[in-house]
Amino acid sequence: MTQRAAEKVFEDSPEHLFGVGPDFSLAAVDPASTPAFAGRKSDGKAVLSARSSRLTRLQERLFAEGRSGRRRSLLLVLEGMDTSGKGGVIRHVVSAVDVQGVQLASFGPPTETEERHDFLWRVERQLPGPGMIGCFDRSHYEDVLIHRVHGWAESRELERRYSAIQDFESRLHEDGTRVLKIMLHISKTEQLRRLSARLADPTKHWKYDPGDVDERLRWDDYMAAYEAALVRTSTAYAPWYVVPADNKWYSRLVVQDLMLGVLERMDPQWPPASFDVEAEKQRLAKS
Amino acid sequence: MTQRAAEKVFEDSPEHLFGVGPDFSLAAVDPASTPAFAGRKSDGKAVLSARSSRLTRLQERLFAEGRSGRRRSLLLVLEGMDTSGKGGVIRHVVSAVDVQGVQLASFGPPTETEERHDFLWRVERQLPGPGMIGCFDRSHYEDVLIHRVHGWAESRELERRYSAIQDFESRLHEDGTRVLKIMLHISKTEQLRRLSARLADPTKHWKYDPGDVDERLRWDDYMAAYEAALVRTSTAYAPWYVVPADNKWYSRLVVQDLMLGVLERMDPQWPPASFDVEAEKQRLAKS
Repeated sequence: MTQRAAEKVFEDSPEHLFGVGPDFSLAAVDPASTPAFAGRKSDGKAVLSARSSRLTRLQERLFAEGRSGRRRSLLLVLEGMDTSGKGGVIRHVVSAVDVQGVQLASFGPPTETEERHDFLWRVERQLPGPGMIGCFDRSHYEDVLIHRVHGWAESRELERRYSAIQDFESRLHEDGTRVLKIMLHISKTEQLRRLSARLADPTKHWKYDPGDVDERLRWDDYMAAYEAALVRTSTAYAPWYVVPADNKWYSRLVVQDLMLGVLERMDPQWPPASFDVEAEKQRLAKS
Repeated sequence: MTQRAAEKVFEDSPEHLFGVGPDFSLAAVDPASTPAFAGRKSDGKAVLSARSSRLTRLQERLFAEGRSGRRRSLLLVLEGMDTSGKGGVIRHVVSAVDVQGVQLASFGPPTETEERHDFLWRVERQLPGPGMIGCFDRSHYEDVLIHRVHGWAESRELERRYSAIQDFESRLHEDGTRVLKIMLHISKTEQLRRLSARLADPTKHWKYDPGDVDERLRWDDYMAAYEAALVRTSTAYAPWYVVPADNKWYSRLVVQDLMLGVLERMDPQWPPASFDVEAEKQRLAKS
């Protein structure tokens, strides 16, 4: 019944609406749109809050499974331009579950040690353990995004990386990790608004990096790099979704729905007791 | 004004009430008591929720500082018998802040690799980075608690460890990490109730470990080990607090208050801009 009620949140499923296929065009996605949701911001926030407990219940079962020998996990990969709302998704969607079952990792410029290894080395070390929800704020995709935009990798090397990513994610899938990849897609105008807001508020200056404007000046190159990477690496075992993100409340609602979809299909179950329950009841009573 | 309003939550400060001094006696703390708080459970929950935003604001400033070159951090160490509510404190108190600023670590039985190192080695690797709140679910204190109870360390080795812990925590303090150590103190009767509840509910069987009853049978030895460790290692730079924890709502409220106290004394500030704000506004407008 909960499931039925949930199906009514979107008129069409976000998985269907936002999935990236071979003919995907980033230009065709309007970052300011809020498709298939009839309500407004306040409705969206109410739904987000109402569905949090469902996410929490599914996460707790997944965690319980992991403690009892099963190896399944979920990896959420978040990508998007600066200010696209990755941190907000972590705060408002992912953190609604028990954080003891969440492994966060954020990937900035690689350290010297990391640079001495293949680009997947540092990512491998941050993969979620059994029963955990891993959440990447940026990821191994930086190596085919910023590297392409700045020309730090030539097209042949980029091809190698796309293939390496496919192999890597296929292996994760076979090992029991469901990989959910989401690009939060904002417009250039909305980014201007958000960066300006940071500059206007002294309590937000620490979040502002002049380097962000340098990247912003390469907007079109980034969009081309995203489109190429998304099309090349959106697979049945590790699909990409591009979520309109000019409206934070909407993108959060969609990410939550995508997570719920994956976890519901995983359908984690409470593990049976690995001990004799009646015997333990008696032993406990005597203790 | 917020601060004044907060002072009224407790009639006497938890720091004063629950701090461990040289004459501390664990037997003198009633785990079922709720001292200095006039309200009931529902009041406690309301206060906890109302004060969360204050904790969040302080944490955000600390995090901002850490991003801007300052090295300060907070380390919360949680100890207590099984079912004492450490996980609940993490879920309901610590997780109220932005989890991207929290580093959780839980310390179970050491791995083979960990056993080949000094007992502080694995702890050192989990210390919070600049601006972070570290939170330990169990800690280096296991090496003077379970080890003492089971006789895995002789008294001379225990003495060495107490001293090593003092040196370690003193170094942390000098390096800018505020260390806040809390024992959640439950009664043996309350533990029986909580373990029984786990056995009675099939969705909680995965949380039940028959080994917990083995430890429960050594209750008095554990209390002696706690008392010795607390007295030996409660210092001005890394004080211990023993919080009555038979009432979860009360212990959570107290932990929150202790964290607020430390963070308010740290008084983190928004860092000044490291760039020319006006110049950036113009550059951004042109981008």
